[in-house]
Amino acid sequence: MSLQGVLPITLTPFTDSGDVDSGGIEALTERYLDSGVDGLVALGIMGEAHKLTDAERSAVAGRYVAATDGKAPVVVGCSAPATRVAVERAREAEGLGAAAVMVAPPNNLKNLGLVFEHYREVAESVSVPVVVQDEPVNTGVVMPAAFISRVMNEVQNCRYVKLEEAPTTIKISALTNGIESADKRAGIFGGLGGMYFYEELGRGAIGIMTGFAYPEILVRVYYLYSKGREMEAREHFFRYLPLIRFEAQLGVGGVGIRKEVFKMRRVIASSHVRSPAPPLDAETLRELEDLVEYLGLTEGDTG
Amino acid sequence: MSLQGVLPITLTPFTDSGDVDSGGIEALTERYLDSGVDGLVALGIMGEAHKLTDAERSAVAGRYVAATDGKAPVVVGCSAPATRVAVERAREAEGLGAAAVMVAPPNNLKNLGLVFEHYREVAESVSVPVVVQDEPVNTGVVMPAAFISRVMNEVQNCRYVKLEEAPTTIKISALTNGIESADKRAGIFGGLGGMYFYEELGRGAIGIMTGFAYPEILVRVYYLYSKGREMEAREHFFRYLPLIRFEAQLGVGGVGIRKEVFKMRRVIASSHVRSPAPPLDAETLRELEDLVEYLGLTEGDTG
Amino acid sequence: MSLQGVLPITLTPFTDSGDVDSGGIEALTERYLDSGVDGLVALGIMGEAHKLTDAERSAVAGRYVAATDGKAPVVVGCSAPATRVAVERAREAEGLGAAAVMVAPPNNLKNLGLVFEHYREVAESVSVPVVVQDEPVNTGVVMPAAFISRVMNEVQNCRYVKLEEAPTTIKISALTNGIESADKRAGIFGGLGGMYFYEELGRGAIGIMTGFAYPEILVRVYYLYSKGREMEAREHFFRYLPLIRFEAQLGVGGVGIRKEVFKMRRVIASSHVRSPAPPLDAETLRELEDLVEYLGLTEGDTG
Amino acid sequence: MSLQGVLPITLTPFTDSGDVDSGGIEALTERYLDSGVDGLVALGIMGEAHKLTDAERSAVAGRYVAATDGKAPVVVGCSAPATRVAVERAREAEGLGAAAVMVAPPNNLKNLGLVFEHYREVAESVSVPVVVQDEPVNTGVVMPAAFISRVMNEVQNCRYVKLEEAPTTIKISALTNGIESADKRAGIFGGLGGMYFYEELGRGAIGIMTGFAYPEILVRVYYLYSKGREMEAREHFFRYLPLIRFEAQLGVGGVGIRKEVFKMRRVIASSHVRSPAPPLDAETLRELEDLVEYLGLTEGDTG
Repeated sequence: MSLQGVLPITLTPFTDSGDVDSGGIEALTERYLDSGVDGLVALGIMGEAHKLTDAERSAVAGRYVAATDGKAPVVVGCSAPATRVAVERAREAEGLGAAAVMVAPPNNLKNLGLVFEHYREVAESVSVPVVVQDEPVNTGVVMPAAFISRVMNEVQNCRYVKLEEAPTTIKISALTNGIESADKRAGIFGGLGGMYFYEELGRGAIGIMTGFAYPEILVRVYYLYSKGREMEAREHFFRYLPLIRFEAQLGVGGVGIRKEVFKMRRVIASSHVRSPAPPLDAETLRELEDLVEYLGLTEGDTG
Repeated sequence: MSLQGVLPITLTPFTDSGDVDSGGIEALTERYLDSGVDGLVALGIMGEAHKLTDAERSAVAGRYVAATDGKAPVVVGCSAPATRVAVERAREAEGLGAAAVMVAPPNNLKNLGLVFEHYREVAESVSVPVVVQDEPVNTGVVMPAAFISRVMNEVQNCRYVKLEEAPTTIKISALTNGIESADKRAGIFGGLGGMYFYEELGRGAIGIMTGFAYPEILVRVYYLYSKGREMEAREHFFRYLPLIRFEAQLGVGGVGIRKEVFKMRRVIASSHVRSPAPPLDAETLRELEDLVEYLGLTEGDTG
Repeated sequence: MSLQGVLPITLTPFTDSGDVDSGGIEALTERYLDSGVDGLVALGIMGEAHKLTDAERSAVAGRYVAATDGKAPVVVGCSAPATRVAVERAREAEGLGAAAVMVAPPNNLKNLGLVFEHYREVAESVSVPVVVQDEPVNTGVVMPAAFISRVMNEVQNCRYVKLEEAPTTIKISALTNGIESADKRAGIFGGLGGMYFYEELGRGAIGIMTGFAYPEILVRVYYLYSKGREMEAREHFFRYLPLIRFEAQLGVGGVGIRKEVFKMRRVIASSHVRSPAPPLDAETLRELEDLVEYLGLTEGDTG
Repeated sequence: MSLQGVLPITLTPFTDSGDVDSGGIEALTERYLDSGVDGLVALGIMGEAHKLTDAERSAVAGRYVAATDGKAPVVVGCSAPATRVAVERAREAEGLGAAAVMVAPPNNLKNLGLVFEHYREVAESVSVPVVVQDEPVNTGVVMPAAFISRVMNEVQNCRYVKLEEAPTTIKISALTNGIESADKRAGIFGGLGGMYFYEELGRGAIGIMTGFAYPEILVRVYYLYSKGREMEAREHFFRYLPLIRFEAQLGVGGVGIRKEVFKMRRVIASSHVRSPAPPLDAETLRELEDLVEYLGLTEGDTG
């Protein structure tokens, strides 16, 4: 099962007391699938993966796979500071039924030779493909396009890359030049909250992985674009750009507002985010509600 | 002369061989003023101030003040690693006729006590107001809202603050709560390339300082907003948001694309940027031209 | 049981295949105790805590507590990106018999208000004391002396602080001025591999927590110093300073050389370090052996 | 005139009111030369170069060259954020009589391709050699040994490298393996305040560039080592290691203590450091004086 299209980075819903909300995972999965997404990415940063215990990670990944029930591929985040632990997580994810594993470099590992070995070892330990996650702001590791190309060219199982370093557009072009296999060149996903999705597609991205809380909008953009209706894709994208931009401003703090969106939409019961997390002010929520109403999204109208 | 409204962070134009292009400064100033801006900010990061010699800094600042000819206030960037040098630059700027000086913290100065003293000394050395420039990505110095409020409350001459840490919206609200003087509360400027200008105004910003290359768009948004025509302001803002977003993706590298815009608009003769600078790829320029055409901006049509 | 004196940050020994070596923990504990140390610190950075699974963390902490068998206090590192997880680890450590828990701020959490809340919640969740770990190079979080003082003054259970930001000497003096409780002022531990242990004691440190692989040297320095024999303490310290300095050069990579030392001393069977880790070159080992021989440490001769 | 041996990174003395003290430069130069140093490095970080105006930089460099009067080579720091400005500084330094220019990468320039071009352009603009300054803590730019080797191999004029990334020892070995020209391999200088000078020499360093305020100690170590009297070199090095270590703790703040040393030795009249700078506490000065007395250095006795 190959990956392409729109794959939301899923939230990890909690109850108000901070426990993992398994029912919330099912409700979110149903909503994501109803939005027409092409797959899910569990245990990304937006999923607060780094704030879960090992046992909770397994439970969340397992529940997302089970709730999806084979209707779409589920990618599972398996990043870890140690290669051995990343390998364990990747094997476990494969065992749970993950279609692929996503791995960012260990935090602050500036020695790219060691980053390369990390990817090689993890990729050789599983049979599902690895998504190379380029996440410099959170990891502190800058991976130039030439380095990522080398990983893709030399490590067989590294079949996808998900970009997060701005500008993604120029990096996509650099990667399509640097990656030798046509198949892998077609394995580049954009990010940045969807802010440049139209341009990313124009550069050769095969889709996007992002936490934007209205994936149906990106699904529609992708659908129109891939049908050759580029002008309509752009029109749709620009129409909803104000909201995409609004969510993007909060960066890592954006998990809170995205939980508020899904609570507002009655998908999850609590918008609880694990501490430490910057609090959302009431005005941000009011701005969000205004914007949702302005865009006619006060349930489902995404035309 | 108090500051408010839209103040572009001006470019420093060069000839193709890399010399400062004085004629270009005059042409840019004329164009900025024709766009209806409320002032100019010379020698910001977008003006490649850190890539100029001391003599060039003086020449550029002087030329911008002269070209403006009293029609609008000119703010001059005076940041420096040493307090003494910042003081010298501030005094020189005042002597040249600057309406205010803008000062970011010395790079990587994590000790906020020392940052405070830096602002105090610079502010006491001039009679024009100081704009506190919050620029964490470039300086490496994070100034929490409580710290900036303290600077504004305790240093008389620190009358303005220009924000660049996302999310600016929440920080504006925190500052309006923390700053005691109503006058200084009304001295907050937004930034981030204009990406959240509408929301920044809603939070209490008195204007914006940014390098966005179509300042007339922000001028119109500000005009409508300040006349109480908020819905029209939003409409205008969202209409041109695709372009604001496009420029913003390039971050510090954005100086190149902004020079291309002004070259495309026949204001300056060369888009030369001083090395080291990331090169723009041809596709980025093509994307820009498409967008400008799509928005009906292929000269001047900003509605 | 209160903490003071020399508490080594313990290694986590692995077999050559990378499994936790429980027998090695017992052998290390015996050696540490034979060296006269006043306690142990398990699951610090030197213990590769961030490279262990949750289950391994529990096993290692439990084994260190069991092997120590009440002869000395064992501090257990409980740092985590989420407050809830740090709380769980702290409670578990207390349940296992830890005398105290050591907590560094969540990585890259620049908002010190949130860091304060993190400490407050963890400290309130256990009855054993908390050691505030100041570790800016690894966490990316700079905690000024005034902030640490506030934590110590306002959070009852935060009774100790372990410093790692250079210069520790000046920070110790600032803390002894800023901390109100005499008892807590006497709870400051030095670090930096022991490089400034003599001066740290002179400033008021109650001891040191460090990974230096010859703790008996620091034990002797501390013994002499606390008996008022300061000149002898200094003499002993300076005699072995070349070795302390040698280990310190490797920083985080120093875990490898410290494992080599304990392997050379026949305490552990393997010097395996979990990947990714910078490799030691053969010349470094040769330099180490020369130095050990030069200092007459080729088993046990520490005066 | 080729470079080798001990080249102190010189201070820039100021009067108490903060002006450059030209007489102090002459006195310092005389003292440095009396200490037997093999050259001087002006306008390094220890020389507060980044806190000087362009005019002051020229004056300080010129004065150091004049005061040295051909008795030893003077290297001049020419780092700048813009290639063009670095080129101007390098040409000016050559014109003033500098024997070489030292250049660190522009701050935070993570794109090593652009760093390479920067070195190439500066090196091609002068006929004196370039010292590649590896200074990751201050510049934010990590240059792996393989990258530095490439610069040395491909840019003819880049003949020396001065290391500051710990561990310098391992990096020296990596460079001697990676650099093809035997002449350039013999152009590696150590740093880190002299903390690993003995080991650096053992790895193949041709000398050291550092701000350590008792250069005569390093001169003696180098003399003994280069005469094949390695054991004596080590003995001398270890004897004064406590002081080398003491100065090193202050890092960038170390400029203050080094000025105090030269004031205590009656070489300069003022220990003024330009703001912002962390203040030295009285206890640090007392510790320093004790140590100097303990080592019998209370004028000149360096055996």
